[in-house]
Amino acid sequence: VSIDARMRRVEAARGNRPLDLLIQDVKLVNVYTGEVYPAEIGISGGYVAYAGASAWPGPEPHKRLSAQGKFAVPGLIDCHVHIESSMMSPAGFAAAVLPRGTTTVVTDPHEIGNVLGLRGVRYMLQATAKLPLRVYVQVPSCVPAVPGQEVAGAEFGSQEVAEMLTWRRVIGLAEVMDYVGVVQQSQRMRTILDAAAQKGTVISGHCPGLRGQALAAYMMAGPLSDHEAHDPDEILEKLRLGMTFEAKVSSFSESMRAAAGIVKDLGTVPPNLVFCTDDIWPEDLMQAGHMDNVVRHAIAEGMPVIGALRAATLHGAQRHRLFDLGAIAPGKQADILLVPDLEAFEVDEVFVAGELVAQKGRMLGQLPRLTSGVESENNVHLSHTPQKEHFLLHARPGRRTERLRVMTLEPDGSRGMDVVELPVRDGVVDLTEASELAWVAVLERHGRSENRSLSLVRGIGLERGAVASTVAHDSHNLLVVGRSAEDMAVAARELVDCGGGICCAVNGRVAALLPLPIAGLMSPLPLEDLVPLMQKLNHTLRGLGMGFRQPLSPILGLALPVIPHYGITDRGLVDVDRQVVLPIWADEG
Amino acid sequence: VSIDARMRRVEAARGNRPLDLLIQDVKLVNVYTGEVYPAEIGISGGYVAYAGASAWPGPEPHKRLSAQGKFAVPGLIDCHVHIESSMMSPAGFAAAVLPRGTTTVVTDPHEIGNVLGLRGVRYMLQATAKLPLRVYVQVPSCVPAVPGQEVAGAEFGSQEVAEMLTWRRVIGLAEVMDYVGVVQQSQRMRTILDAAAQKGTVISGHCPGLRGQALAAYMMAGPLSDHEAHDPDEILEKLRLGMTFEAKVSSFSESMRAAAGIVKDLGTVPPNLVFCTDDIWPEDLMQAGHMDNVVRHAIAEGMPVIGALRAATLHGAQRHRLFDLGAIAPGKQADILLVPDLEAFEVDEVFVAGELVAQKGRMLGQLPRLTSGVESENNVHLSHTPQKEHFLLHARPGRRTERLRVMTLEPDGSRGMDVVELPVRDGVVDLTEASELAWVAVLERHGRSENRSLSLVRGIGLERGAVASTVAHDSHNLLVVGRSAEDMAVAARELVDCGGGICCAVNGRVAALLPLPIAGLMSPLPLEDLVPLMQKLNHTLRGLGMGFRQPLSPILGLALPVIPHYGITDRGLVDVDRQVVLPIWADEG
Repeated sequence: VSIDARMRRVEAARGNRPLDLLIQDVKLVNVYTGEVYPAEIGISGGYVAYAGASAWPGPEPHKRLSAQGKFAVPGLIDCHVHIESSMMSPAGFAAAVLPRGTTTVVTDPHEIGNVLGLRGVRYMLQATAKLPLRVYVQVPSCVPAVPGQEVAGAEFGSQEVAEMLTWRRVIGLAEVMDYVGVVQQSQRMRTILDAAAQKGTVISGHCPGLRGQALAAYMMAGPLSDHEAHDPDEILEKLRLGMTFEAKVSSFSESMRAAAGIVKDLGTVPPNLVFCTDDIWPEDLMQAGHMDNVVRHAIAEGMPVIGALRAATLHGAQRHRLFDLGAIAPGKQADILLVPDLEAFEVDEVFVAGELVAQKGRMLGQLPRLTSGVESENNVHLSHTPQKEHFLLHARPGRRTERLRVMTLEPDGSRGMDVVELPVRDGVVDLTEASELAWVAVLERHGRSENRSLSLVRGIGLERGAVASTVAHDSHNLLVVGRSAEDMAVAARELVDCGGGICCAVNGRVAALLPLPIAGLMSPLPLEDLVPLMQKLNHTLRGLGMGFRQPLSPILGLALPVIPHYGITDRGLVDVDRQVVLPIWADEG
Repeated sequence: VSIDARMRRVEAARGNRPLDLLIQDVKLVNVYTGEVYPAEIGISGGYVAYAGASAWPGPEPHKRLSAQGKFAVPGLIDCHVHIESSMMSPAGFAAAVLPRGTTTVVTDPHEIGNVLGLRGVRYMLQATAKLPLRVYVQVPSCVPAVPGQEVAGAEFGSQEVAEMLTWRRVIGLAEVMDYVGVVQQSQRMRTILDAAAQKGTVISGHCPGLRGQALAAYMMAGPLSDHEAHDPDEILEKLRLGMTFEAKVSSFSESMRAAAGIVKDLGTVPPNLVFCTDDIWPEDLMQAGHMDNVVRHAIAEGMPVIGALRAATLHGAQRHRLFDLGAIAPGKQADILLVPDLEAFEVDEVFVAGELVAQKGRMLGQLPRLTSGVESENNVHLSHTPQKEHFLLHARPGRRTERLRVMTLEPDGSRGMDVVELPVRDGVVDLTEASELAWVAVLERHGRSENRSLSLVRGIGLERGAVASTVAHDSHNLLVVGRSAEDMAVAARELVDCGGGICCAVNGRVAALLPLPIAGLMSPLPLEDLVPLMQKLNHTLRGLGMGFRQPLSPILGLALPVIPHYGITDRGLVDVDRQVVLPIWADEG
């Protein structure tokens, strides 16, 4: 901040220089005192220069705007989000969430970090540098999720973490997911946490189910937040211990109901309750919204409106030490929403740094986009062009059947293991009669190995064809699920050509394609163009038998070697609990 | 913090190493959720390793302590205090306040800064480095209070401020008292605020009566707290604007009643309400207490107990970004009070970093004291030894009377000006018949000039004798108030000899002496030895006609050139509003 700019703002506040803008006839939502009262808001140089219950007593401002009695609410702060989950570029994400009242996000570029390493994190900073959305970055703490069980695009140790923590707009260490490593003090987690502690930065957590002693050990080691608890007792325990609880409404889960219940019991919104979206897919973003939807959920679940808004603004700013955000008050950045009805919480106008950037759900003006670097590269680097042959499992010599390990999708979201006996036809294991099974191939796509695995899954629902994806948490290798080796090859080759995305192939032809050429994770398209592609893809997958609300949801998590008790990586079927790779042959390993 | 120490604490929390101490049978005051519930508190390496509603499930701790059902409250945090006002060394201050539940103070070493400059601030850091009391320092922002109108021991510009902000345990810029300079953007205030902004540090404020536009301009310039407002409307305005309001119970004023009234109206304790003591004199410290007394005041004024305790602990920690303080929770420093009755709020046990340091109002063990440097120097540096002659006002040639300007003490605490005609006897102005008047001499005592002034005051109450003091806000020159030139010289010489303090002389002899040899401001004596000296001094002053509850109170502020509308410095009678020195001769100037 230049001293001259501040001087001008002080002059304006004092009344010796015209305000840039005076917003009149608002009902100010005061997140400090919990009051709502008629007020005027003066803005100078992007900052609030006046926020008074009486009329602005200074000289005529450059511009006046009547809010016609709408409520003025501070811009909403998303305390934990993976922009990549929106499948949009940072610019596309910003254009999608700003009209919904989200003016600040704290993002964990964990996905692109797994693909492109420090370059990926740097890209997220560059691509957000000139956006009206305030994007703060936390350093991904667990890249890859589990070293040794998969090949990701990068590995972050304490040195990489320490380097990234010196970058501008990097404000913390992102969700430390390896909570077992933290509690057990693995060398990797210990040195990474130490790098963050040396810097004195915010350390965010992720610790589903962690309670009691283990939770205390986790907190003692550094991380002081969580967004994974869903059980009310667990949430209450975490709040009592001073953990920042990031109540969540994401595409996959929500903890707002439990949080609202606790608030009702306590009779107060604890200062360590904040809100987040974590992962929101394009369709949900379009249909349900973003942080505005989180606030609506909170209100619908019975949280007091002003308390919910305090959690969505001031508390988030305090947690992330963004001391000039989170309130409408002199010296704060003028991030202001105008909302006709607090209970309904539909955002009409969105001001960022005093500029009207969105109105009635639409962005005003275009956002700058990068057209070079990561956004123009193809980052699907396979060692071989995918062929049908790669997706066939050759039986061992002389076998007419094979007994094989198969990963099973359980109703509770966990994954089990079973053994099936399958016939061998023309020397390859044949799934034709086993309609509940599908092949899962993982092809390392970062150009760091020749790894390629082929495994079996039960319960995914796919009856024919194939679906391939370069979105495959967390290493984002090329994942191909299919019943047909040919279709698997077609879908995989299509993604190699277009630089990644999600592709469905049937009968030897591409049936639906969602190109995600930015690191194989994100699309340059805006939300309104992306969603129809996504919908077509989902429609196609449902036609192939996948009955899930979000058919992609189970697919994209198949490769995660941190969900109990199994996962499938480029090395094969991983026993998560024992952290070993199991051969597909049931009589081995 | 060494990584090994943290490792050991994590092990203890996890249960793989015995806790140092387990405090059982407490009722935990949870400042996050606002609950109170039975709990056990585990401590390891000075930190809280467990704070659970269920029994500690881990191995046998090294030590167990039953709290016998007492309430466990986080150590109290004083958000703004001048240690020098206690007239004790930092060690003496710590020994006095720790048993009263104050475990952390944020101090502004403004007084010693005015005397010894950077050396004084460094001394405060050194003298507090090994104390169990956590002492954080804010850099004095206004040394001297008003440049040009007085000679202090030092002048702090932006360079000095920037240097001190790099020192360990320095956590902010202290109360920016020159609010007129801030709002008007004087070069001095602007560059000092810029130094603090560059560092991104907390900037504290002091802005009595500031409201509306001027308040917004002040906040825009940087300072975001205040402890001077007493009017409920002003306090509410400041809270609404997000200023941290430091509700105060000091030896001179209190704003807790107004703050409690606001809390009652709002139905909630705003997150930006914190507590402070500012200045507490030894007698008050002994009789009323310290932060415990502030909490008692808050409760007595009707503030909800848990809300008051949250303001006294968590809110203060958050304001000063002391993220490991303010609560009893894993990973926080184990600063814990045991209190039998929350409403009465008498502190029984005080733990700091897990060590029991005080019990039933008494310190356990001796505190380390410095015996070198500032504590062994005489810092009363006059250009001449005080003589009776220096305290006589010689009339101008041929005058039998003189018309003289006299500063008047007004009932509201302000100072006016009047003109009196006084007889001349033996060539000097004679006060004998003007019993309501007294001489005020200010002798520059920092060895930086030969400045010496002689002025008149009305309303101080002194009928005979003299009182001299090296405590004379803010420049702490040698102030001598008297009706007898001889007694003035005696009192002044006594202070030169003993290195400063407060001395009362009558009939040519010292009648009472409070030696304050540490920078002329502080005594090495403990509270229980200091208070009798202070009481004898006050008793003596009352015997000389001074009817104030605190007879010294008006004397020690006489030299302040920032209280409306007059003050008396080493340069003479200062017109505060016009910032000029007025001659004593009414027909001049």
